[in-house]
Amino acid sequence: MESKKFILQEQDIPKAWYNIMADMPVKPRPLLSPATKKPLSAEDLFPLFSKEVSRQEFNMTDPFIEIPEPVRDLYRIYRPTPLVRARGLEKALGTRAHIYFKNESVSPVGSHKLNSAIPQAFYAKEEGVTNLTTETGAGQWGAALSMAANHFGLNLAVYMVKVSYNQKPYRRSIMETYGAEVVASPSMSTKAGRAIITNHPNYQGSLGTAISEAVELAMSTPNCKYALGSVMNHVCLHQTVIGLEAEKQMEMAGEYPDIVIGCFGGGSNFSGITFPFMRHNIAGKANSRFIAAEPQSCPKLTRGVMQYDFGDEAGYTPLIPMYTLGHNFTPANIHAGGLRYHGAGAIVSALSEQGMLEAMDIPQNETFAAAHIFARAEGIIPAPESSHAIAAAIREARRANEEGTAPVILFNLSGHGLIDMAAYDQYHAGDLVDYAIPQQEIDDNIAQLPKLI
Amino acid sequence: MESKKFILQEQDIPKAWYNIMADMPVKPRPLLSPATKKPLSAEDLFPLFSKEVSRQEFNMTDPFIEIPEPVRDLYRIYRPTPLVRARGLEKALGTRAHIYFKNESVSPVGSHKLNSAIPQAFYAKEEGVTNLTTETGAGQWGAALSMAANHFGLNLAVYMVKVSYNQKPYRRSIMETYGAEVVASPSMSTKAGRAIITNHPNYQGSLGTAISEAVELAMSTPNCKYALGSVMNHVCLHQTVIGLEAEKQMEMAGEYPDIVIGCFGGGSNFSGITFPFMRHNIAGKANSRFIAAEPQSCPKLTRGVMQYDFGDEAGYTPLIPMYTLGHNFTPANIHAGGLRYHGAGAIVSALSEQGMLEAMDIPQNETFAAAHIFARAEGIIPAPESSHAIAAAIREARRANEEGTAPVILFNLSGHGLIDMAAYDQYHAGDLVDYAIPQQEIDDNIAQLPKLI
Repeated sequence: MESKKFILQEQDIPKAWYNIMADMPVKPRPLLSPATKKPLSAEDLFPLFSKEVSRQEFNMTDPFIEIPEPVRDLYRIYRPTPLVRARGLEKALGTRAHIYFKNESVSPVGSHKLNSAIPQAFYAKEEGVTNLTTETGAGQWGAALSMAANHFGLNLAVYMVKVSYNQKPYRRSIMETYGAEVVASPSMSTKAGRAIITNHPNYQGSLGTAISEAVELAMSTPNCKYALGSVMNHVCLHQTVIGLEAEKQMEMAGEYPDIVIGCFGGGSNFSGITFPFMRHNIAGKANSRFIAAEPQSCPKLTRGVMQYDFGDEAGYTPLIPMYTLGHNFTPANIHAGGLRYHGAGAIVSALSEQGMLEAMDIPQNETFAAAHIFARAEGIIPAPESSHAIAAAIREARRANEEGTAPVILFNLSGHGLIDMAAYDQYHAGDLVDYAIPQQEIDDNIAQLPKLI
Repeated sequence: MESKKFILQEQDIPKAWYNIMADMPVKPRPLLSPATKKPLSAEDLFPLFSKEVSRQEFNMTDPFIEIPEPVRDLYRIYRPTPLVRARGLEKALGTRAHIYFKNESVSPVGSHKLNSAIPQAFYAKEEGVTNLTTETGAGQWGAALSMAANHFGLNLAVYMVKVSYNQKPYRRSIMETYGAEVVASPSMSTKAGRAIITNHPNYQGSLGTAISEAVELAMSTPNCKYALGSVMNHVCLHQTVIGLEAEKQMEMAGEYPDIVIGCFGGGSNFSGITFPFMRHNIAGKANSRFIAAEPQSCPKLTRGVMQYDFGDEAGYTPLIPMYTLGHNFTPANIHAGGLRYHGAGAIVSALSEQGMLEAMDIPQNETFAAAHIFARAEGIIPAPESSHAIAAAIREARRANEEGTAPVILFNLSGHGLIDMAAYDQYHAGDLVDYAIPQQEIDDNIAQLPKLI
């Protein structure tokens, strides 16, 4: 494990986020109103989101958007994060590939989610908002927003997917320690929740349902906004601090990545690590490959369709142009709770449609096998979500071995797995299940979507 | 939370550990043989520990001992660690004191314990050892040694205090992920364990008992050594990387600490943060105060006696000159499992006897209240152990407020609490208990000790 770390100084924390929409020759399709099917504007989102993130959502012109100083100030708690040349992993794989990972697990909540939680809470506070609502799957986003909301003095209600609420009590407790109110979703506190509980009393929840509940509460509470941890364009924007730092660090290492990999749920960490490198592809200055590593059990990019769909289960959100499995798709209870989402954000979906990226769907057991190799080779126990990126990197390194090549591979370690050890226990016991979705189930869900593309 | 971080580069990782024994005008008393009551030499420890750490244990002459390059190489995974000016905490307390903390929680196992686990595993490997044994309380040391043993290709058996084995399954699982074998202590696998189980079938274990089991297994297994995570002189030596880095970082901040604080179990992180600063006191160049923050329920420095005592429950170890509550003392089941140890290491005990440091015993609820203030002010959820240091820092800041002074306070954040959230839940529910030990119980235990001082 002679792994080498590349360390930046505080002044190297990016001063602006990278907005890939400005550089895309073909822009993402617009969000549509569910009622009129007409394109929405930033103003249409003001009731739901803070004004500034609503504007960012629609900004197709500015390639860089300044990071406010109070946001950079809070980033300093954990940024810049290290880039590591994973020589231990290379050795374990016997590969000539050079493997690097960006380590976002060093944040105080253990994942990359603070990168967007901080600006979202900041803008809300600036605009006089007093209350926020959000959803969380495994609890990574909820923990991050709890920390940020507490810092800016905002109240926060978090709808946590029920299966995670019961399986991951530590993450609930982390949110409560930061002062947030945590509710298991589906709950009786919203119409959307009551409807589901009435029809499916034992339903264990999904991100789609939790989003419906959080949106409904925000819309019915005075001076309250909703904050989302992935999918939306502004979230992808905020996450680009990951790739912008990594770009400088790869320069320090004297290399440029041939392959850039992120795990894929709604797109937040994937966008963060890839977009800053993708801009050099768009400009014709580089020819890297970009790989979205998604769970076999929730394969929106590999097996979904490009269509307008809701971001949530109840249909409260705008219609988003996305690769989707259908907003009623119920993902299996895999341990990578942060990847259990039916669709991909608008930007990633457009880039995928345009052939700018590849997707790979990976069985659960393969991701834990990869996590084990990584933990023993690099000393860091990865989150189940991040393990998808590791598994993809290992696939690529092994393929390179077979082909006799030596690519430079960069992946994002989006979080550590110290609060997910129950999943590791199941893996050790041989009790983890792989879930391959029957095509009929996907087809049935997709058949219910409006045909707008 | 405009907290400021001071970041070092990889080349700033110390090249040598600081050996305070070389500078102490009055040396610690020697270890004694239990059989002959005669002073021991390094060679006497060779059957138990690796030769190099045995030599370090008795080194009274070299103020600096070189860190082997493979050890520094592994330190690079997480070192140098940040020093943070805790402006958020200062603001929350309304204090003019300047408060700094050294953040050892950024290591991949979440605590400072790797600082000694890595060299101990390295030396064992260098000397041809194939198997290690150790004990662990809350699991921090066991996790660290598991990671290091795995890296150097050593087998490892960890005796984990039973109450923690049952309460903290995540830490057990972390050790297993790194490939270690974990046994709940007391166990049937050793004479020491069987004796206790026979007499006290429901005994929930203690560090003293787990040490007995680990020592017994090491002594009865070919090519096997024992590794200890605290107390011993060589462990304190290895931990000085904390304070040596902090010294450079305080220089970057343009300040020098008036008060240096560490939580106190056996002395490892306390020694690490304080000894490099204490050497300037010894040299007459500074006049800092040093505070050991121990649990009210295990107050060896504040209420124990200076006497020769065993390091373990069964009496397998050498006799150590220590402030002790008696090796049969059974600490209450507080959540700061790493501080549940009956004695203080020989160096710290000597320094305490010589008036070089102060001790403070703190009730459990006060430590969690401090942890809450810190988590909300600085964004990091601290380990229950580290929360003792935070509580002591808050006491000092509040006293400074009353006295109208503005001291520079430095404490060590030895670990994060993300795997201890069950303890936070109990605190939120108002269910945490303070344990004040009746003086009679301490007196009874101490009365059983040989009178060698």
